[in-house]
Amino acid sequence: MKILLTNDDGIYADGLCGLYHALSLEHEVYIVAPEAERSAVGHAITIHYPLRVQEIRRGKLFWGYAVSGTPADCVKLAIYELVGPVDLVISGINRGANVGINVLYSGTVSAATEAKILGYSGIAVSIDAYEDIDYCYASYFISNFIKNVDKVCLERPFCLNINIPHLNPNEIKGIRVVKQSTAKLKEVFEKRRDLHGKIYYWQGAEEHLENSPYTDVVSLKEGYITITPVHFDLTSYAELKILSEGKILESIHI
Amino acid sequence: MKILLTNDDGIYADGLCGLYHALSLEHEVYIVAPEAERSAVGHAITIHYPLRVQEIRRGKLFWGYAVSGTPADCVKLAIYELVGPVDLVISGINRGANVGINVLYSGTVSAATEAKILGYSGIAVSIDAYEDIDYCYASYFISNFIKNVDKVCLERPFCLNINIPHLNPNEIKGIRVVKQSTAKLKEVFEKRRDLHGKIYYWQGAEEHLENSPYTDVVSLKEGYITITPVHFDLTSYAELKILSEGKILESIHI
Repeated sequence: MKILLTNDDGIYADGLCGLYHALSLEHEVYIVAPEAERSAVGHAITIHYPLRVQEIRRGKLFWGYAVSGTPADCVKLAIYELVGPVDLVISGINRGANVGINVLYSGTVSAATEAKILGYSGIAVSIDAYEDIDYCYASYFISNFIKNVDKVCLERPFCLNINIPHLNPNEIKGIRVVKQSTAKLKEVFEKRRDLHGKIYYWQGAEEHLENSPYTDVVSLKEGYITITPVHFDLTSYAELKILSEGKILESIHI
Repeated sequence: MKILLTNDDGIYADGLCGLYHALSLEHEVYIVAPEAERSAVGHAITIHYPLRVQEIRRGKLFWGYAVSGTPADCVKLAIYELVGPVDLVISGINRGANVGINVLYSGTVSAATEAKILGYSGIAVSIDAYEDIDYCYASYFISNFIKNVDKVCLERPFCLNINIPHLNPNEIKGIRVVKQSTAKLKEVFEKRRDLHGKIYYWQGAEEHLENSPYTDVVSLKEGYITITPVHFDLTSYAELKILSEGKILESIHI
């Protein structure tokens, strides 16, 4: 397969490197990734600044294209200008899980979603760890998964958000196809003073307040690899139906 | 009502100013908005840099808080630190429509979505024009709409994406509750050279390739005010069902 590889941790990230080596044995792999970390950028795109592209070499080997934009920019620019049509877009392996509400903030997932928007199948891959990460098993899992991708009984283009626990393979309990949790995040804003006495805030999220095992958040925590099919229609159809039947339109003067 | 007003065009934008004056006659309105334009940032949040907050005055009047982050940051920081709980969050009035695929890239809509995530109702408002914009009618419409917001027969918190044509009021055909178009955007990347001979790309989108009148894209173009209820569960439930019943899980070795 012709595969486009991107991420939001930047072109030099270990997770992208690990996945590249696992995939390039059997596939034609192209890397187009942000020149530096672009975490939590959500589905941002760059329309007010020019995008710069740099060819990156590692030793004598051409490694990929580093882009001065977001993950979604990378996918668009790759498809339209740098690489052309591909069989699959893979985004990752991200350092840190992308489950629950965090999926909305995730640059990793937005790259896979952007692939689907453009008419290509996309897979976002994240590992549930931040330190001392071993990407070997996750890379092996994905290379094995995409060998079987024809058995994914979805129409193309699909977009899958895959999260992998950072456990020894024999401790992983299995795979679960689960929905995205919509439970609240326990968030913090820490108010601090800089060296000049001026106030600033650090933003962080501690945990999802979610208990249902049939969600990505809890299944991942329990030791399962989670797979969530993702769409990009933000319409709330249940509410659309209620609104259409309601009286709101009659009571508003235009 | 206690209303939080934000946007993605920045705290000094005319659209926010117009809406403030229309709402502040009857409501307690707080402004927490980006210090400068943050268009197309999608649902980005700022977790790797500190957030700075500046109190902005216009003459002797306290105008609002300018934040060094994104629209979603503004809503979080307002609710958690600067303003506290509110009855409604309004984001806008945005310069330029937010319909179709552009909803995913929109900072305006992400602020209203963030309100819903945090448990508050949100309304995103955009006007379909970029130059010589008259915000009077749109401001009047929104102030009238929220007077009737109790008749919106949705459970709270809701999130509504409202787009208003830039027409004389008597040319506006009515209001339509419609879904977000998922049709492709006709996009362009223009390759240029800077004054030093180095290549850069400008990204732009020309139009949605959408024909169905039952979408936000076409209804707005036809002269209707469009209302789309928005959710933040990116799970594709139809595909979740197919995947759960399929053979993919059996064929993958973990």
